[in-house]
Amino acid sequence: MCRWLAYSGSPILLERALYAPAHSLIDQSLHSELGAEATNGDGFGVGWYDEKPEPGVFRSIEPAWNDQNLREIAGHVTSGHFFAHIRAAIGSAVQQTNCHPFRHGRWLFMHNGYLAELATVKRDLILAVDESLYPSIAGQADTEILFYLALTLGLEDDPPDAIARTIGLVEDVGRRKGVEFPFQGTIATTDGRRMWAFRYSSEGKSRSLFFTGNVARLREQYPERDILQEVSDDTRLVMSEPLGDLPAAWNEVPESSYGVVGEGDDQLRPFRAKPPVTSVAVPA
Amino acid sequence: MCRWLAYSGSPILLERALYAPAHSLIDQSLHSELGAEATNGDGFGVGWYDEKPEPGVFRSIEPAWNDQNLREIAGHVTSGHFFAHIRAAIGSAVQQTNCHPFRHGRWLFMHNGYLAELATVKRDLILAVDESLYPSIAGQADTEILFYLALTLGLEDDPPDAIARTIGLVEDVGRRKGVEFPFQGTIATTDGRRMWAFRYSSEGKSRSLFFTGNVARLREQYPERDILQEVSDDTRLVMSEPLGDLPAAWNEVPESSYGVVGEGDDQLRPFRAKPPVTSVAVPA
Amino acid sequence: MCRWLAYSGSPILLERALYAPAHSLIDQSLHSELGAEATNGDGFGVGWYDEKPEPGVFRSIEPAWNDQNLREIAGHVTSGHFFAHIRAAIGSAVQQTNCHPFRHGRWLFMHNGYLAELATVKRDLILAVDESLYPSIAGQADTEILFYLALTLGLEDDPPDAIARTIGLVEDVGRRKGVEFPFQGTIATTDGRRMWAFRYSSEGKSRSLFFTGNVARLREQYPERDILQEVSDDTRLVMSEPLGDLPAAWNEVPESSYGVVGEGDDQLRPFRAKPPVTSVAVPA
Amino acid sequence: MCRWLAYSGSPILLERALYAPAHSLIDQSLHSELGAEATNGDGFGVGWYDEKPEPGVFRSIEPAWNDQNLREIAGHVTSGHFFAHIRAAIGSAVQQTNCHPFRHGRWLFMHNGYLAELATVKRDLILAVDESLYPSIAGQADTEILFYLALTLGLEDDPPDAIARTIGLVEDVGRRKGVEFPFQGTIATTDGRRMWAFRYSSEGKSRSLFFTGNVARLREQYPERDILQEVSDDTRLVMSEPLGDLPAAWNEVPESSYGVVGEGDDQLRPFRAKPPVTSVAVPA
Repeated sequence: MCRWLAYSGSPILLERALYAPAHSLIDQSLHSELGAEATNGDGFGVGWYDEKPEPGVFRSIEPAWNDQNLREIAGHVTSGHFFAHIRAAIGSAVQQTNCHPFRHGRWLFMHNGYLAELATVKRDLILAVDESLYPSIAGQADTEILFYLALTLGLEDDPPDAIARTIGLVEDVGRRKGVEFPFQGTIATTDGRRMWAFRYSSEGKSRSLFFTGNVARLREQYPERDILQEVSDDTRLVMSEPLGDLPAAWNEVPESSYGVVGEGDDQLRPFRAKPPVTSVAVPA
Repeated sequence: MCRWLAYSGSPILLERALYAPAHSLIDQSLHSELGAEATNGDGFGVGWYDEKPEPGVFRSIEPAWNDQNLREIAGHVTSGHFFAHIRAAIGSAVQQTNCHPFRHGRWLFMHNGYLAELATVKRDLILAVDESLYPSIAGQADTEILFYLALTLGLEDDPPDAIARTIGLVEDVGRRKGVEFPFQGTIATTDGRRMWAFRYSSEGKSRSLFFTGNVARLREQYPERDILQEVSDDTRLVMSEPLGDLPAAWNEVPESSYGVVGEGDDQLRPFRAKPPVTSVAVPA
Repeated sequence: MCRWLAYSGSPILLERALYAPAHSLIDQSLHSELGAEATNGDGFGVGWYDEKPEPGVFRSIEPAWNDQNLREIAGHVTSGHFFAHIRAAIGSAVQQTNCHPFRHGRWLFMHNGYLAELATVKRDLILAVDESLYPSIAGQADTEILFYLALTLGLEDDPPDAIARTIGLVEDVGRRKGVEFPFQGTIATTDGRRMWAFRYSSEGKSRSLFFTGNVARLREQYPERDILQEVSDDTRLVMSEPLGDLPAAWNEVPESSYGVVGEGDDQLRPFRAKPPVTSVAVPA
Repeated sequence: MCRWLAYSGSPILLERALYAPAHSLIDQSLHSELGAEATNGDGFGVGWYDEKPEPGVFRSIEPAWNDQNLREIAGHVTSGHFFAHIRAAIGSAVQQTNCHPFRHGRWLFMHNGYLAELATVKRDLILAVDESLYPSIAGQADTEILFYLALTLGLEDDPPDAIARTIGLVEDVGRRKGVEFPFQGTIATTDGRRMWAFRYSSEGKSRSLFFTGNVARLREQYPERDILQEVSDDTRLVMSEPLGDLPAAWNEVPESSYGVVGEGDDQLRPFRAKPPVTSVAVPA
């Protein structure tokens, strides 16, 4: 479907995470090994935090692998907290407003996976978005709906709870409409200080998700790697698929779990969708 | 806002209507004289009928004036029934799914104007779209909402009635939300046999709309014009703004009226919006 | 690198050749099996002949697999003679003017392969283009240079001779500049009546090339295939890679040879590059 | 033709110069008042310097006025030295490689104007580009040819001399080919420390060019303008057309002259093209 990367730690040029390593994210846009599709050529996006109140977002419908502007921006923008995403469209149009990451205020949101049978569940889900948020929806991607549902259900206050309730709602609406496995995927979201990454699917066979481990230990293992000398101990990278050149650096996020990164508070916890207490009305 | 052209009559190469005349539609993309904006550079679209059951549609986000592909298609596609539109975006994104004309089955639909305060009325209008049609909405343009409301309200059976009820609904929702003049614009729609063109606005000061008159008489007035020798007597062009080189050829569609063209049934009639009998519920 | 398709025969909707078959050209844009790269996502083009003096050309920098406009045009344009090409860029920019097929007057030209070390040989080759043709060069692709060299060397009079001299010139310039294997690839060119397809490389290991055989015999082998009942006996398809569903239909063009298709004159002949009699001056 | 802006001074967010003022450059993309064309919608570019050895460049073929990515970059990139350009194409294709500013190493280059009868002079000018620079030419714009000629003729050592010799060469080639007024326009170039802006045309009626005067004096005149309180005394803006809100701030660059800005070395001097001592051979 898609591939994504989330970085938190010492400020670096984006290109060091996006282009430099073997089997980099940009390389994965042409040759993904673990993805559902080898090619992720239906647009891309990066979102980065700096001293401004809101993150910057650069999104394009071109394939990432040959995009000259992405190369320029990645070579000139430095950030200690950024998201990047490459897209393989399934159903919704290839257009900027459907590219990840999505932004609302200080928040970024991206996803690798899908809402099964979107046409069947879309209207009921859109209706569950808060009316004041509804006009901000700019595209037609299933992920944007997820994001606005999560914002409706408290993302800014308690991200794990909001994501659990969002997916619970998707499963509730889907199942009552006859969809066997309504949700699939990994989700990353951040407010620019901490980031949360979720791995979950209704059928229990979720898209892959990996994170880098202890930097101090990696420094010992790979003393020749400059980047490891430069970044702080709490630097973390979370990705759909490992970068290729440091196999020992990567740990898999277990099925049905989520991680928190940032502010010295790294954790890995079990994740379970929370069905709505009162069901959303679905016509028979 | 936008400019559009609707052609019905003898099959011609699209370029003869789009590029050839002075002050052509493509020229109007750079230098509109009567439009709310001089520049209509936020994408364009053409829709044409041939022997296939559904019309072809070519839409792009590039400005029309320099688009090489539009030139190619216009120089190689022949049709006796086609729509063309150039866009000046106000609010919704510059993307193919927001470009006119919109298509559903055999129907095409385009618009020059706007729904006032779209963010305020959008959700209620979307809710009024038939559930079976809702998943086909691919973009976020106000015109696409109008189209799907019209389809919901019987466009395929009685276009003037459906448009009257659609605008009536827009006005009803808008006014209850405090919007003074909810609808503005001209609309063209067709099933490939007949076309309907509407000029209406809630404030009674509508965007301009013109149509060509009797071809037999024009032939006498302009005997040197090849195109007039070639096309049949029932050929009609309806446009936001006249082509520049045959001033005597153009009649203005009066305020609050609509015309029907095709199958020997040309008519010009008064138009009035029809408010909904039972109001759509709008939270206080 | 790239993949291409050339069709000559009974007029058909482009989509029947581009989309319909298993492992279609559009499918090959995502999943090529024989190409140097599995993904051909750096733009595409189609060129088709109709009753107009020059062929129409539609080119885009989007990946072909998700391009809505290509789908529309392929679903509404009928032709008995057309080229289609999907690109995997190597070096030159992803832009319309670098997309194949290239056109000059009635002629189309496309290529799968490369000029080795283009930066080294480019200036000398450009200088060999006829001065009157030079201003028509609109992009920076190696294939466009090949095309203009071929036009300079007599393409319109004797295509096999002109291509042989063009590649001979490329090899001559390249070798004197220290390039071991200057030319690689397959080339197709046509004037709308006949088409010529070449398979050649300086190292004798050329990109793959296939053509369909006798339609009458195929009709017997695959009686259930509608398309074979519809097309004339002299219909031919030449492709970088076979369509997947009729294995028996495809013959490989042998190494260092070329074929002519059209006007009842199908032939397969050996091909040899012709070095220039008088060398182009190359500074030491 | 085009409009451009060159900024040198205290580091600011790009958006403060590109979007903030009345009649801003982005506004001029839709509504230029002094340009040869009111609309400059055929792409744009920005180039900015930071601590990296080479400037960053972001170029796009979309109209600047609605480009979301330009807004993002302008809202997050801070620089004390940058160029911005909006394009109205005349002749060469609308593609990124034809968008200004052009870059070579540390140098940026942009232009508002044209080489008259480009097709007539192009080949001879291209031949005059140094062979080692020739392969770096990526597009087909007349301005890119100017840039590579200037690099060939010593831009990096003595910009005013190199530009004078470049335009002298253009005039020499042009006149021998029967072009009455071969050069028209304004040019800006910079190495990231100083910038040079030229106003010249063969016919002595050059495109407009303006620069801001003494900041200390402006601060007194406009005490309410925050931006003037923030920027240093040596901050300078050079533009095709003044920003609209500070009329007293702008001085016109006189016909046939050039200015230098940067490193406390602001100067305004007469400019004269320097014909080549030995003419480039032009076939009769």
